[in-house]
Amino acid sequence: MSADADERTEASDAALVDEARRWWHTDIIDVAPGAISLRGYPIEELIGRVGFVDTIWLMLRGELPSRAEADLLEAAMVASVDHGPQAPSIAIARMATTCGSPVNGAMASAINVLDDIHGGPGQQCMELYLEIDAELGAGEDVESVTRAVLERRRAAGMTYVPGFGHRFHPLDPRTPRLLSIVDRAADDGTIDGRFARIGRAVEDAISAGRTRRIPMNVDGVTAVIYCELGFTPELGRGVFILARSVGILAHAVEQMEQGGRIKGPVPKSIGYTYTGPARRSVPQERGK
Amino acid sequence: MSADADERTEASDAALVDEARRWWHTDIIDVAPGAISLRGYPIEELIGRVGFVDTIWLMLRGELPSRAEADLLEAAMVASVDHGPQAPSIAIARMATTCGSPVNGAMASAINVLDDIHGGPGQQCMELYLEIDAELGAGEDVESVTRAVLERRRAAGMTYVPGFGHRFHPLDPRTPRLLSIVDRAADDGTIDGRFARIGRAVEDAISAGRTRRIPMNVDGVTAVIYCELGFTPELGRGVFILARSVGILAHAVEQMEQGGRIKGPVPKSIGYTYTGPARRSVPQERGK
Amino acid sequence: MSADADERTEASDAALVDEARRWWHTDIIDVAPGAISLRGYPIEELIGRVGFVDTIWLMLRGELPSRAEADLLEAAMVASVDHGPQAPSIAIARMATTCGSPVNGAMASAINVLDDIHGGPGQQCMELYLEIDAELGAGEDVESVTRAVLERRRAAGMTYVPGFGHRFHPLDPRTPRLLSIVDRAADDGTIDGRFARIGRAVEDAISAGRTRRIPMNVDGVTAVIYCELGFTPELGRGVFILARSVGILAHAVEQMEQGGRIKGPVPKSIGYTYTGPARRSVPQERGK
Amino acid sequence: MSADADERTEASDAALVDEARRWWHTDIIDVAPGAISLRGYPIEELIGRVGFVDTIWLMLRGELPSRAEADLLEAAMVASVDHGPQAPSIAIARMATTCGSPVNGAMASAINVLDDIHGGPGQQCMELYLEIDAELGAGEDVESVTRAVLERRRAAGMTYVPGFGHRFHPLDPRTPRLLSIVDRAADDGTIDGRFARIGRAVEDAISAGRTRRIPMNVDGVTAVIYCELGFTPELGRGVFILARSVGILAHAVEQMEQGGRIKGPVPKSIGYTYTGPARRSVPQERGK
Repeated sequence: MSADADERTEASDAALVDEARRWWHTDIIDVAPGAISLRGYPIEELIGRVGFVDTIWLMLRGELPSRAEADLLEAAMVASVDHGPQAPSIAIARMATTCGSPVNGAMASAINVLDDIHGGPGQQCMELYLEIDAELGAGEDVESVTRAVLERRRAAGMTYVPGFGHRFHPLDPRTPRLLSIVDRAADDGTIDGRFARIGRAVEDAISAGRTRRIPMNVDGVTAVIYCELGFTPELGRGVFILARSVGILAHAVEQMEQGGRIKGPVPKSIGYTYTGPARRSVPQERGK
Repeated sequence: MSADADERTEASDAALVDEARRWWHTDIIDVAPGAISLRGYPIEELIGRVGFVDTIWLMLRGELPSRAEADLLEAAMVASVDHGPQAPSIAIARMATTCGSPVNGAMASAINVLDDIHGGPGQQCMELYLEIDAELGAGEDVESVTRAVLERRRAAGMTYVPGFGHRFHPLDPRTPRLLSIVDRAADDGTIDGRFARIGRAVEDAISAGRTRRIPMNVDGVTAVIYCELGFTPELGRGVFILARSVGILAHAVEQMEQGGRIKGPVPKSIGYTYTGPARRSVPQERGK
Repeated sequence: MSADADERTEASDAALVDEARRWWHTDIIDVAPGAISLRGYPIEELIGRVGFVDTIWLMLRGELPSRAEADLLEAAMVASVDHGPQAPSIAIARMATTCGSPVNGAMASAINVLDDIHGGPGQQCMELYLEIDAELGAGEDVESVTRAVLERRRAAGMTYVPGFGHRFHPLDPRTPRLLSIVDRAADDGTIDGRFARIGRAVEDAISAGRTRRIPMNVDGVTAVIYCELGFTPELGRGVFILARSVGILAHAVEQMEQGGRIKGPVPKSIGYTYTGPARRSVPQERGK
Repeated sequence: MSADADERTEASDAALVDEARRWWHTDIIDVAPGAISLRGYPIEELIGRVGFVDTIWLMLRGELPSRAEADLLEAAMVASVDHGPQAPSIAIARMATTCGSPVNGAMASAINVLDDIHGGPGQQCMELYLEIDAELGAGEDVESVTRAVLERRRAAGMTYVPGFGHRFHPLDPRTPRLLSIVDRAADDGTIDGRFARIGRAVEDAISAGRTRRIPMNVDGVTAVIYCELGFTPELGRGVFILARSVGILAHAVEQMEQGGRIKGPVPKSIGYTYTGPARRSVPQERGK
């Protein structure tokens, strides 16, 4: 890209420098020689006085949370750190270390797959709750609005409701515990409580007429918490990733200690099944 | 991979199943229908009673920390969340979102580059401290052992000491604050304090005879903390990545809000410089 | 996950082994001790007799292409290898190496951002062409169907047409060259030519009434080629990534040779602009 | 980062613009409105006249290869495209798609793990060959130099020789075929042939005195080819990644077609084994 040097004037240089300086701009962090501030707070005032979860909130939201808000976020994050080596993200982190990846590489390959299916249900559930909430006018009841939204979504092709049911747990052990914490926070006024009502209304609506209820899972209940606390769905997925990164790191390091080189998904003795065409020869006439 | 079905016996099937079941094994998490425990603790007991930093410690180390230990780890993590869009990891997260990456993808591309140079100095500094510590016998003084180790490393080709000096900050504002917290923790017996002595001895040794000291930077002081708390160097890097992931996420989401499509590193008006061969023609005789 | 050992019978072990063996199954590759075949062809027959582009086709499509088909795919891939360090993918690969990433890491962080915006327009353009093609009944002319589809998409919110126009090139130099190769392939019967007609009809439709045409860009013309050759849109993106990986690798290695440590997007002297709140103090009463 | 606006002079603006323009510089590609050239060659001259493998060479090496050189590189790349779903890279690509990753994400997570153990042996083998070659003075025989280098490396802790032996193939079917192509290329003067001699000398040296030889594997023989063709070890790994990306993409897309959601490494019925502490309660006195 050849600079057209002759046409450049001093005036345009100043404009270019200004444009270049503004190319990257942020409300998050100010760094000057000897000084760092996050959202305006000097880093040395935050260190030791403000917790890690408070700092997560400050970085993502712009202001410090109240103690009670931070406690609620913290409970949701503790609940989400791990779900074991059957989760592809965890398995990938473990396999990566046996390929020689350092922790940053193992974490990157693993976090990367927390995409729409593996990391998205919480975010999608938040979008559902927010859609129901947006339709809740004065005087309307949560149950009927919830049923209407679900019917509309089903008509549009929704085949399952994100945040409800679990292929492994009949009842997710994280759900009742988190819900009781949510209820307590609603009682003491930390949160409003309407997303808890919406979440329960969704569970009722999709369980109606069934022998076995389809209970809220960890995605559904953390979605309640993130909505109550005012997080956007995108940030909801982000916070989940921060939490799950802990499990990813723990498993990566445990696998490093266990050793293993180029460890496949199953033992070599199990292997895989080839289902393709039978052995055949490249046509004789074929040249490149 | 064709299974050799005829030779399989029932006995070998049982052995294969056992081998397959043990292929992935972990001390970290037990998951059964309706039950999840981390390091033996039921998840529902941890949620709401144990903090996120305590959970990080539990997952990485196997046991819960004391309150004072968790506080020290938390201070180090708060100090490490961000260093602004000039850091390649942060710039990459921002660029990724303008390419259409969701938060998981933006975070993965960014975390991935926290490799030996961008994410490694803390880990390398821990290795240096541990090497010095390992040579400290009874009666030997920290200063002379430190000088000897540094001389040996310089003779072996070390050109700079990881964890000291900063290309941007004459004095890293995070260092004195964290050091004072470390000193307080040593005074109250939470930690032993010998890695703080080692870190200061390194600073003295490399600053001796210079007009301007080469002060400990954030990597050097968090390395003190991680060593005091018994983390391995590998885990030290891992904890740094967990902390920096917060800044990476915050910048990714801010860039999503700012918009921009396929945003290059510099404005188009600045561009880049081509330094290669002049325009030339593909030789006429050349065919594939 | 505690195995329920007592209930296991030999019969169920055999069933488990079968299930485990079929868990991963593929039509692509058969590997046995001393033997590897791709899509049924022994690897030793492919090596040296079949080209790399033919092998790409074989792996992705299941059969070997004709010489003329491979030539057309090859032309599209050569056209797509690079677009310089202003492309975020290339900039990321270069930055990654200055953070200590090896080539695999630099390539991963870079390829990862070839997402819907940076890597997706070709795929989206293929979907548009295929939608138009699907509506082309007997006797209907391409122009009116194209206009109808574009109108329907605009009504549904489409604001720009993927594969047309370029923020940098008034006319993309790759387009006329590739189009002439496509036309020649249609003349000699290698391809049918109807996607070239569809592509040109789109260009006409969106340029109608404008002083300056909105010409087909490299995404639009390679989308013509991939559609003519029967690739799915997903594979179209995949092939683009294979091609662009070449540029990503070349730039990563060039940056390694140039050196640089933790190289930010712009020089430190340019920096970035902080637009957030003014410096403020953490409230005194705040404790963790 | 507050710009110190008052001190800026027009002269310094010009200098800043120049610095910013040179911040990214490359010999690889020149892009101007309407014009793109690779290593000086206009892109429209390359498209359709130069093959994809030739373009890979041009991008990585700076000049076009001879037909015979490109053929040799092509044979090595065809040999390396895939080794089945037991390879972690392939398994990761397949798992990623079941988590919702698009092809770019699946490829990124997979390519990322082609690190020192999974993607590095070829590179390490090239380093070994080059070390032997560097010590080969006039009149010295390959065999004794090879034995001396191997002994020195073993004394320094090398426990296995990269590029030789295979945990799956008694004889890698790719090796004899590639070696015969190398020999033919040496006979016709395309290459010198000395790295083939070195590779065979290594195989002889490590097999001496054993009942079963430790034969050169695909990494060892492609390392011969890359060394003969003048590639650096780093580029050797890069070229391997370009080749293996084909298999990674093919498996990712096949898995998308097979479906599956959040597919773990083994069937749920197999699961994994928990080996950690027995269930225990969080101490009552513990608060955050």
